[in-house]
Amino acid sequence: MFKKMLLSTGLMSMLVPTMAFAADDKTPAQLASAIDSVWVMLAAILVIFMQAGFALLEAGSTRMKNAGHVAGKTILTFGICAIAFWAVGFGLAFGDGNSFVGEGGFFLDGTQEQIKSSVSLFAESPIPIGILFLFQLAFAGVSLAIAWGGFAERGKLPVYFIFGILFTVLIYPVVAHWVWGGGWLGQLGMQDFAGSTVVHLQGATAALVATILLKPRIGKYNKDKTPNLIPGHNQVLSVLGVIILWIGWFGFNAGSTLSATGDGFFGYVALTTNLAAAAGAVAALVVSWMYFGKADIPSMLNGVLAALVAITAACAFVSPRDAIIIGALAGIITFFTAQWFEKAGIDDPIYAFSVHGIAGIWGTLSTGIFARPELAEKVAVGKAGLLYGGGLEQLGVQALGVFGAFIFVLVVSFIILGLIKITIGLRVTEEEEIIGLDLSEHGTYGYPEQMKKAAAQGAGGAASTL
Amino acid sequence: MFKKMLLSTGLMSMLVPTMAFAADDKTPAQLASAIDSVWVMLAAILVIFMQAGFALLEAGSTRMKNAGHVAGKTILTFGICAIAFWAVGFGLAFGDGNSFVGEGGFFLDGTQEQIKSSVSLFAESPIPIGILFLFQLAFAGVSLAIAWGGFAERGKLPVYFIFGILFTVLIYPVVAHWVWGGGWLGQLGMQDFAGSTVVHLQGATAALVATILLKPRIGKYNKDKTPNLIPGHNQVLSVLGVIILWIGWFGFNAGSTLSATGDGFFGYVALTTNLAAAAGAVAALVVSWMYFGKADIPSMLNGVLAALVAITAACAFVSPRDAIIIGALAGIITFFTAQWFEKAGIDDPIYAFSVHGIAGIWGTLSTGIFARPELAEKVAVGKAGLLYGGGLEQLGVQALGVFGAFIFVLVVSFIILGLIKITIGLRVTEEEEIIGLDLSEHGTYGYPEQMKKAAAQGAGGAASTL
Amino acid sequence: MFKKMLLSTGLMSMLVPTMAFAADDKTPAQLASAIDSVWVMLAAILVIFMQAGFALLEAGSTRMKNAGHVAGKTILTFGICAIAFWAVGFGLAFGDGNSFVGEGGFFLDGTQEQIKSSVSLFAESPIPIGILFLFQLAFAGVSLAIAWGGFAERGKLPVYFIFGILFTVLIYPVVAHWVWGGGWLGQLGMQDFAGSTVVHLQGATAALVATILLKPRIGKYNKDKTPNLIPGHNQVLSVLGVIILWIGWFGFNAGSTLSATGDGFFGYVALTTNLAAAAGAVAALVVSWMYFGKADIPSMLNGVLAALVAITAACAFVSPRDAIIIGALAGIITFFTAQWFEKAGIDDPIYAFSVHGIAGIWGTLSTGIFARPELAEKVAVGKAGLLYGGGLEQLGVQALGVFGAFIFVLVVSFIILGLIKITIGLRVTEEEEIIGLDLSEHGTYGYPEQMKKAAAQGAGGAASTL
Repeated sequence: MFKKMLLSTGLMSMLVPTMAFAADDKTPAQLASAIDSVWVMLAAILVIFMQAGFALLEAGSTRMKNAGHVAGKTILTFGICAIAFWAVGFGLAFGDGNSFVGEGGFFLDGTQEQIKSSVSLFAESPIPIGILFLFQLAFAGVSLAIAWGGFAERGKLPVYFIFGILFTVLIYPVVAHWVWGGGWLGQLGMQDFAGSTVVHLQGATAALVATILLKPRIGKYNKDKTPNLIPGHNQVLSVLGVIILWIGWFGFNAGSTLSATGDGFFGYVALTTNLAAAAGAVAALVVSWMYFGKADIPSMLNGVLAALVAITAACAFVSPRDAIIIGALAGIITFFTAQWFEKAGIDDPIYAFSVHGIAGIWGTLSTGIFARPELAEKVAVGKAGLLYGGGLEQLGVQALGVFGAFIFVLVVSFIILGLIKITIGLRVTEEEEIIGLDLSEHGTYGYPEQMKKAAAQGAGGAASTL
Repeated sequence: MFKKMLLSTGLMSMLVPTMAFAADDKTPAQLASAIDSVWVMLAAILVIFMQAGFALLEAGSTRMKNAGHVAGKTILTFGICAIAFWAVGFGLAFGDGNSFVGEGGFFLDGTQEQIKSSVSLFAESPIPIGILFLFQLAFAGVSLAIAWGGFAERGKLPVYFIFGILFTVLIYPVVAHWVWGGGWLGQLGMQDFAGSTVVHLQGATAALVATILLKPRIGKYNKDKTPNLIPGHNQVLSVLGVIILWIGWFGFNAGSTLSATGDGFFGYVALTTNLAAAAGAVAALVVSWMYFGKADIPSMLNGVLAALVAITAACAFVSPRDAIIIGALAGIITFFTAQWFEKAGIDDPIYAFSVHGIAGIWGTLSTGIFARPELAEKVAVGKAGLLYGGGLEQLGVQALGVFGAFIFVLVVSFIILGLIKITIGLRVTEEEEIIGLDLSEHGTYGYPEQMKKAAAQGAGGAASTL
Repeated sequence: MFKKMLLSTGLMSMLVPTMAFAADDKTPAQLASAIDSVWVMLAAILVIFMQAGFALLEAGSTRMKNAGHVAGKTILTFGICAIAFWAVGFGLAFGDGNSFVGEGGFFLDGTQEQIKSSVSLFAESPIPIGILFLFQLAFAGVSLAIAWGGFAERGKLPVYFIFGILFTVLIYPVVAHWVWGGGWLGQLGMQDFAGSTVVHLQGATAALVATILLKPRIGKYNKDKTPNLIPGHNQVLSVLGVIILWIGWFGFNAGSTLSATGDGFFGYVALTTNLAAAAGAVAALVVSWMYFGKADIPSMLNGVLAALVAITAACAFVSPRDAIIIGALAGIITFFTAQWFEKAGIDDPIYAFSVHGIAGIWGTLSTGIFARPELAEKVAVGKAGLLYGGGLEQLGVQALGVFGAFIFVLVVSFIILGLIKITIGLRVTEEEEIIGLDLSEHGTYGYPEQMKKAAAQGAGGAASTL
């Protein structure tokens, strides 16, 4: 009687699969499937958590009058991306189709088996489609979050809706299909393990187009075209954001093995990832110290991220020592290109193109240089790099991949954002920009008490124009 | 010799289970137990991390003068809850007993087997009792954290001690037992997979009683009873809190499968959860934009949470499309009810009753509407919903569950808080409320430098009254 | 044809291990290895995330003018630690060697098998060396982060480079080897499950030496030697830091089982850990209330951490009830010793020695008091404690371990920091300290808008001196 009662209760129901298991034992294949599923679910959660990292990094790197907007729009656009990627993006990226784009699996319609039959890439995977979807969505969401860097402190709110949808369905899935979904770059053997090109360069290229079309922020450049520093308002939040991104990257890179049952290869990938990030932090801080005479914290944070971006392609293909070299060089290259873009009149508020674009290119090329033959064979993609007996072949494939992705995203983003610009407009008015996007786009300050005090002191100008 | 030395060392000892494993291989049942244990442990950690989400959301949504108090009391009350739930709450909720309350497993006394013999609900579970306890504690802690929303910015510190203990031992475990622990609602087939009613409505109902008994904050209402906006001081912290809650919900909902070895069902639950949250974000932002003329970020954050609250009951029973509908409607309903409560003179500072109560009710009812027969059968709780052939029966059970839980918590909270009110009092003095709870309850500001500056400018009033 | 195409693509490559698995099923040993690997990887990620906890706790507990520096240096020094521990520290700690130090595994050179052959401690472990390394690195990083507490608000940036490297290669690995790596303390049966002594006391002792050599901060003591309160600037960040540390400790302690396949023992360890933390929070708040007349939030946060530090050694050896006693006493002892050190003229800005040192000593001794015979036998380290039939023997071993570790770290830290002091100097100039380390060491404020406003009001003094 009590047993029957228990069986009918809510929690008991949760135990049902377990009880079933008690009755008939799992096969090794079922157990391996469960282990891989837990690992990829954990990885998906870590990569979704990276949205917090981007929200904090971007908010911390911009001004107080825009902070609520910057942080809040992260949640909005991840929401938009989640629905658009479920409806269309995932199918275009991973569905069966041709070398250019996928054509199945939209809306994840049907049973697990039906979905997998039109997404044959995952047909053999022991991981349920829901988890695979979440993991891939998390990547699309990161790519989109990177793109927003180029819109910061002056983009209009409706643009986030429109471009958020279009990036998720017209841009990201195409390049993802080319490299990971059975498309032409994958067929050529392009090595981009977790997406230096697919995720980072794509987002960064859209950011570059945006920042060029939006033009620099008011006050960024003087009449003689020399740039002014517009410091971010909160380095502590930026630091927290970067640490969240750092741990998120264990999901990003080590999760991209899509397996924990192989032979512990995911641990190897986590190791190279961590070494690269460490090297990027130290290298970027030291180079900023030598260049500025002061050890610049934002430069160090960019160095960590640049190193992580670079090792994203290479993590499964290179040795720990080479991971350190790749990470350190990413930190240094990004530092100098960020200076260069700023001087060239491109106001990229949180250095999205340097950190994710330049380092994404470097990372993708670096596997063509440092890939070990035994690791290329293990991962079963491409060949050894230039330094380990592969000649220029793999490096050429990598360069072609970078070039193809960059041109595609550049052109499509330019068309989309250009059309928005000449129709509803990309940028808030000058007045709105001066008072800040918190008030102009959302009607309240993100920090109402602190901004009010500033205004009360007649120091409103300092707070709003800085 | 060296081997012997190793065996006696600390770290080696950690390897002992492993070494034992090397000697005799695990059975499939033991392996499945370990996989489920890792998954539920991860879920428990994610749900405990939600305390950070609530601390940030609540601190960000209130004023600077109360920020240290609001954040700090989260840790205090989770500590109180952890000990009270271990001593008494867990046994009342899940121990063997009658249809109203459990009567075993207090203090987790005895061996694993002894405990499970008086908590027969978990007797067949392959997961160790320590992990099951932590997972359930995390839920009780969330319910309590929700309740505090109604006390915000005016509750006395001793009340947090007293009500924290009593909620954990007299309120939460009773409803948890009714639905999940073998009680009468579970016997009727109530579908509340992860606790829209058990966790969210309970906490929210206590918050409602508190906010009514405490009366509105000073300055909230004008003499003509129109409400003033008292904006939270830091939207960036609120956003971070919501993202932490979002990822925490993967533990909350997908963890409530209590299994990763089933057939990947936890991935399906994670998928519906994520889609609902995304829909709630977009729907609430859009509706606030239409209603206020400005896209309101706090409304969007509430929309995310409302959607997550609603899908908490339904996540295992509904299709992805219906999850989007449930989430979007939760965001919209919560927006309007929050407006309505505010106008009705109920000052619920962080909208706890709208976000967790109304959306909790909606979510519980929604499974009576949208539950798919095949999923109800799979989970083995209740029947199909109204739209999928179940008629009004399941919806009736859901409504009864909502009603029963609401009335019980309403009455018991009213008695407890009423007694506190007429004895030691619930609310700080007017003077204490004006200077803020950081000073009045703890003796120091949470932001001493910023508050001191405000005072130095003779702008202390600005800082302390709004 | 399509199949061939798929096989050559990037993502397909990720599936290769999976596909291999589909072809030939895993053995139970391989499955158990994968489960343990996922668990320890999760634990490593949680412990690395503790860097965010320390960055927030330390930044929140210090002043605005130093906040960017305090947070940023956390990333820098974890980067330094990661490379130094990979190159040298790991081999010294865990490589085969003598009772004093290890001598193998430097740079993780060679194949998995080659590395494990010179790190025979891990030779039998089913977990890949990359994951074991990351887990151990995370511990070394925590110990170093604790040490920095003693340098706060006045240490020069170059010191972080030099001491960061030397602590990672000369101090931490030696004591780690003594207790966990096959050294003399492990041979004596010292019980330090996850490092109350190895991780916490070590870091805290270095912090003590630093804070003594650096001398108190300007303004900390009056001429009559009475101390002034220098409150931290942001309790919300401190609270967030403590919650991150709390969940990180599940990785720290429960992860130190290095196994999820044993019999769920990692869940037991998580349970005692959580109970101790809860007791520490409540006990420290209450005692501060009784002592100060106000419930002090920073004292409560220290109480949580002290309890977690204390249970770190004991978590696997004691009962849940005793865990509560250990945690509560840790919170109380730490409260009073923190008062005492402050009055004795030792300005330890974030109470590193009280929280991690005194509580580390208490935790290590507590296993000699409370260790249960059946748990000591299960873990296979040492014997029962004083209260459970073990007499004074185990307590003596624990005391010897504390004494040995404390003296070693004291002497070596004193030599290193003393040499730095008489060469390049440990401390910034008086002028630099007054303007704050953000400006002096990094050239920009961490909160540029807020600090600028303060300066604009002629209230710069207020901002920069307190």
